[in-house]
Amino acid sequence: MATRQRLVVLGTFVHCRTRQELDFFHNAALGVDADGKIAGFVKDRGDVGAARDELLRTLGWDGDEVQVVQAEEGQFFFPGFIDTHIHASQYANAGIFGKSTLMDWLGTYTFPLEASLSDLSKARRVYSTCIRRTLSHGTTTAAYFATIDVAATNLLADLCLAMGQRAFVGRVCMDARDTSPTYYVDESPAAGAAATMRTVEHMRGIDPRGELVTPILTPRFAPTCTAEGMRALAAVQRATGLPVQTHVSENADEIALVAARFPGAASYVGVYDEHGLLTPRTILAHGVHLSGGEAALVAARGAKVAHCPCSNTALASGVARVRWLWEQGVTVGLGTDMSGGYSPSMLDAARQAAMVSRYVAMGADNDAKDWAKLTVEEVLYLATRGGAEVVGLEGRIGGFEVGKDWDAQLVGLHAVGPAGLGGDGLDGDLNDDGLEDASAAADGNVDVFGWETWEDRVAKWLFNGDDRNTKRVWVRGRLVHSRR
Amino acid sequence: MATRQRLVVLGTFVHCRTRQELDFFHNAALGVDADGKIAGFVKDRGDVGAARDELLRTLGWDGDEVQVVQAEEGQFFFPGFIDTHIHASQYANAGIFGKSTLMDWLGTYTFPLEASLSDLSKARRVYSTCIRRTLSHGTTTAAYFATIDVAATNLLADLCLAMGQRAFVGRVCMDARDTSPTYYVDESPAAGAAATMRTVEHMRGIDPRGELVTPILTPRFAPTCTAEGMRALAAVQRATGLPVQTHVSENADEIALVAARFPGAASYVGVYDEHGLLTPRTILAHGVHLSGGEAALVAARGAKVAHCPCSNTALASGVARVRWLWEQGVTVGLGTDMSGGYSPSMLDAARQAAMVSRYVAMGADNDAKDWAKLTVEEVLYLATRGGAEVVGLEGRIGGFEVGKDWDAQLVGLHAVGPAGLGGDGLDGDLNDDGLEDASAAADGNVDVFGWETWEDRVAKWLFNGDDRNTKRVWVRGRLVHSRR
Repeated sequence: MATRQRLVVLGTFVHCRTRQELDFFHNAALGVDADGKIAGFVKDRGDVGAARDELLRTLGWDGDEVQVVQAEEGQFFFPGFIDTHIHASQYANAGIFGKSTLMDWLGTYTFPLEASLSDLSKARRVYSTCIRRTLSHGTTTAAYFATIDVAATNLLADLCLAMGQRAFVGRVCMDARDTSPTYYVDESPAAGAAATMRTVEHMRGIDPRGELVTPILTPRFAPTCTAEGMRALAAVQRATGLPVQTHVSENADEIALVAARFPGAASYVGVYDEHGLLTPRTILAHGVHLSGGEAALVAARGAKVAHCPCSNTALASGVARVRWLWEQGVTVGLGTDMSGGYSPSMLDAARQAAMVSRYVAMGADNDAKDWAKLTVEEVLYLATRGGAEVVGLEGRIGGFEVGKDWDAQLVGLHAVGPAGLGGDGLDGDLNDDGLEDASAAADGNVDVFGWETWEDRVAKWLFNGDDRNTKRVWVRGRLVHSRR
Repeated sequence: MATRQRLVVLGTFVHCRTRQELDFFHNAALGVDADGKIAGFVKDRGDVGAARDELLRTLGWDGDEVQVVQAEEGQFFFPGFIDTHIHASQYANAGIFGKSTLMDWLGTYTFPLEASLSDLSKARRVYSTCIRRTLSHGTTTAAYFATIDVAATNLLADLCLAMGQRAFVGRVCMDARDTSPTYYVDESPAAGAAATMRTVEHMRGIDPRGELVTPILTPRFAPTCTAEGMRALAAVQRATGLPVQTHVSENADEIALVAARFPGAASYVGVYDEHGLLTPRTILAHGVHLSGGEAALVAARGAKVAHCPCSNTALASGVARVRWLWEQGVTVGLGTDMSGGYSPSMLDAARQAAMVSRYVAMGADNDAKDWAKLTVEEVLYLATRGGAEVVGLEGRIGGFEVGKDWDAQLVGLHAVGPAGLGGDGLDGDLNDDGLEDASAAADGNVDVFGWETWEDRVAKWLFNGDDRNTKRVWVRGRLVHSRR
């Protein structure tokens, strides 16, 4: 990675201290070194000037040689979001799913679109738009499913690297010819594994140390994979230590299909375990209907779960129990699962995790209703530190600690003026054509009146925020998105 | 109302023909007369020029004397949304609700904020912002709860009139001193009715024919109303024919409280019926837990239900069964119930109605799963024609028919260029500072690639659209919101 100018970042910083608590650091100064790492963090001084001076002195940096980024009044820095499950190839279908459920959704909407991305100009159009949009929503790290096509998968990796998004990029393996579409299936288990290796080699070529882009082994899911194909990927995993991603226990029909295809397996999770794919580096998307025994096996192997609330509701797959998973010892992150989930926004995914937890609560006994609900803090934890644990980067991203990478977003909300949101017409101050105050439009829908606590502001951002509130985004110290 | 310049509106028009089907009228021309009514509508001609010429000829209008509004390529006109249940006074709390449920939410967050709006400068700030934002989301008609304060309620009506939003404005009546906060309660049943009459008189003064602003009798709900107070409002209703709005059967604790306070009543709905408030002009918010008998009574009286999906999930109140209500013969519209629901956006409410219906489906027998789900068309019906029926204006708003008022929004989505969403960096076309394509930012998050059907575009709008897609808004022919 190119050496960059050092950054000194000034203002208010918010991150998750624990699942239960946010830290708010005001009048703080954070230094980012030329490798994009947090080199120093001076917090809660009397003013940012004092913090900046102390930071520069401690680090021995010359204030004239650094780039200064200062948050405006009311803005705050927040860790970048980590999307632990997203299909870049399905971006063009976001919002199009009708009344389908998983298996008919795949056949009707998803496989045809994915297959069509073997046209590289189409793939480039869809992938670059997906990356640009997810960056604009504050997603600094994404675990992507691409398609079965090698060249298009490699293109996705190239684009992530060029546009500066940290990514795990997986060529989708689906080699079961009885359950995959005839037009979208690997030639054979061996051909599938070989194709995957070509994408692994490509990514090692463009990013030798895996600083930004990492290949990830991606058996689509047990319904469309053969035992031989899964064993071949498991052998690659053992030899390379690469991460793995797949789906598990999303939908009742899918679970029944797996039971029918693998009658000897102890369970759906057991299928992956018995084929060598349930590793500490494995991300299992969904896990909606896991049994207690399956959750225990996931925890024992150290595999992780990507909770995908939007998708689970949109496709009526079921209601995943995050707190129950936590209590079983399972590490959980958050995924948009776009386009099973309609939104590519991780802020929306966090919001929907809170909403889905209300359904868990509504279905629980009285004593457990409050227990089941996820708080603002908890869903933001899922979107940041939880996700970092799921992708195995908890030592590098997810919070603002010295030594971690500067993967962050600057969040700004709209401050309502003393007279309200301009143009009420009572004093003749409404334009003839009803034009809205431009700043209110540009700043998004979160209106701060001034009396809110910082906790309230974060809650307002979670529930009504959108990409307009994400003013700037950095990955490893590089500015990768900015909004006027 | 002031006479305005006639409008000729050109382009594609989309509205709900039935609950099941959208109409798409391309190359169409619609004429709006000086009173804001649709005077003519020429549809599906070869091009808009032909449609325009035919419209002018038919109406006998001079083309040089009309104002022409032409949709850009890909844009479409859609009926304005009708929010059948929204608390303008709670706007400042949108997104702030913690893990509360209805009764503690009221005491912790809601009553203190509402009470504080007796400060008219604060009320003006909150109300003008609420109206400006809901207009920007395409809400052309709103059924508002204000507060118990007369002056602040009258101010809300003044602001709606000045800013051009069609509104039903209700002073909140809560006269039960044992269940209302000591700091926020009517002096007596008689005092509450008298205060309400002062708001009715005020609104009759500012809008004598109720063309834009209509008073609505607003007993908060049975838990905070006395029998005497409800009877007093019912007497006003019989004398004036004014509409009524209240809440019913939202939450288990609320229902238990009503049963305890009105032990002689047949049911919660029965309480309103027995006190004369269950009329054809009554809007009942929520109706989550209605029994079959209660739904039958609602249908028999011709009262209406405002479905509030966001609120019901956020406060974990329950899962309302819209299709079941329809089958019981109940008329249903959609409400944001902001701030019980965190979003003031009716597009979001429609989206969440689709999502909540998935929970109804997940809880249903296999045969009824598909039945329970609401389609894109159905939730947009709820937000437009359904809402018009709920507020008793189905003859004036909700669709594009000659004789109806021009209450409409112009919707524009983002067209992705041939190279994708610019700046992928591969050809050196990414700005050094990562600045995003400005048009993509301004046009919002709905990316249209060009191969989508019109039905797909509407689905994309429903699921990923926001106020950026609502380019202009008209009420009774007046442009009340515009976005650059």
